[in-house]
Amino acid sequence: MRISEVFMPGDRAIVLLSGGLDSTTAAAWGKANQYELFALTIDYHQRHRCELDAARRVGEFLQVSRHVFLNVNLAAFGGSSLTADDLEVRHDVPLEVIGREIPNTYVPARNTVFLSLALAFAETVSAEHIILGINAADYSGYPDCRPEYLDAFTNMARLATKAGVEGTLQLRFHAPLMTLSKREIIELGLSLGVDFSLTHTCYSPTADGKSCGRCESCLLRLKGFQEADIADPLEYA
Amino acid sequence: MRISEVFMPGDRAIVLLSGGLDSTTAAAWGKANQYELFALTIDYHQRHRCELDAARRVGEFLQVSRHVFLNVNLAAFGGSSLTADDLEVRHDVPLEVIGREIPNTYVPARNTVFLSLALAFAETVSAEHIILGINAADYSGYPDCRPEYLDAFTNMARLATKAGVEGTLQLRFHAPLMTLSKREIIELGLSLGVDFSLTHTCYSPTADGKSCGRCESCLLRLKGFQEADIADPLEYA
Repeated sequence: MRISEVFMPGDRAIVLLSGGLDSTTAAAWGKANQYELFALTIDYHQRHRCELDAARRVGEFLQVSRHVFLNVNLAAFGGSSLTADDLEVRHDVPLEVIGREIPNTYVPARNTVFLSLALAFAETVSAEHIILGINAADYSGYPDCRPEYLDAFTNMARLATKAGVEGTLQLRFHAPLMTLSKREIIELGLSLGVDFSLTHTCYSPTADGKSCGRCESCLLRLKGFQEADIADPLEYA
Repeated sequence: MRISEVFMPGDRAIVLLSGGLDSTTAAAWGKANQYELFALTIDYHQRHRCELDAARRVGEFLQVSRHVFLNVNLAAFGGSSLTADDLEVRHDVPLEVIGREIPNTYVPARNTVFLSLALAFAETVSAEHIILGINAADYSGYPDCRPEYLDAFTNMARLATKAGVEGTLQLRFHAPLMTLSKREIIELGLSLGVDFSLTHTCYSPTADGKSCGRCESCLLRLKGFQEADIADPLEYA
């Protein structure tokens, strides 16, 4: 985990912005800490493509300096229920089971691909900071959301880049939500003025964009709002 | 460097196949070592797009089991003469200068992005091996072609994947050209039956597909063929 204590106001930061609750809160954290935000949203041919609209809304709301939408067709490989047509998104999984095993919504190496693209963006615009909404507490069983993974990525990234080799760029990864529960993330977001009605969370929304309320992602979100004793502003089917 | 001594014939391997001389030789090495090849070619909106046709020809020549062409628009970030329109590819750089500095043909974090995509492909098809044509001797100054970089990536990748975490997949990266000179790569390729007329190397080919003979990539290739005392089958402008 690389939550730096010291920063220069106005430093550039890449934020991986999916349009979900976590990445939106992480981006708002960056804004509140006076980073100049460069948002990167990946269209990986996910089923829940309304995420992309949510990302656009959030980017405008946070007045990012630049917002790159990048098309990377991870569906070409297959292997995840979030991209492949022959796998079903699990519904109604008991909350105590979520996080204990790696679900089939896991997209192979997704975070590694996304972090790599953020690294490419960072080097191009000379950003020293990369902000991520990843989170180990409620991480839903994804291996690439753990602190030890992020440390290994940071080590690799410093060896990978021209700027790192030349010593002109000291890359730092910030995962301000890493140790927070979903409830704490929601509370942090609200304290930073996030409008959660702009976000999208559901893995299998209805045709008119309502959240299903039954996939793992919805269940974790709803639990978080319930524990925070706050109404979720989204519409559920 | 991860050149394993032991392998199971028929093991699956992802090969990053650009269509150039190095990746083609690395792929032929994999074929000769009885790996079942899954080729991955990235269309990153490079200027020298005839590379993609070369990759297709080489994939057919080597009878790969599957060949995925993935579109990833690294030009959206800019920053390299290989993708950006406002930078020129250097010509006629003296050979002794090549490799001493990082040239503007460096695409930010390109190998990291490509390796991440190879990792996603590997996990999807349960391939334990990833074969790369990277090379430190004639590496032309790219930081992400060094052994220490590849070791750091391997470490990160093992922490990143469901298969790695569950212990069902022991990822290994193979860089059979890592310590070879361009001359030795050409000699290895010929000993493996590679038809180098299928490959493409030039960063700034003419409209009719001829190599310029003057960019850094051409200069290194030509030097290699000269030192091997073999005629380059490509046509030069």
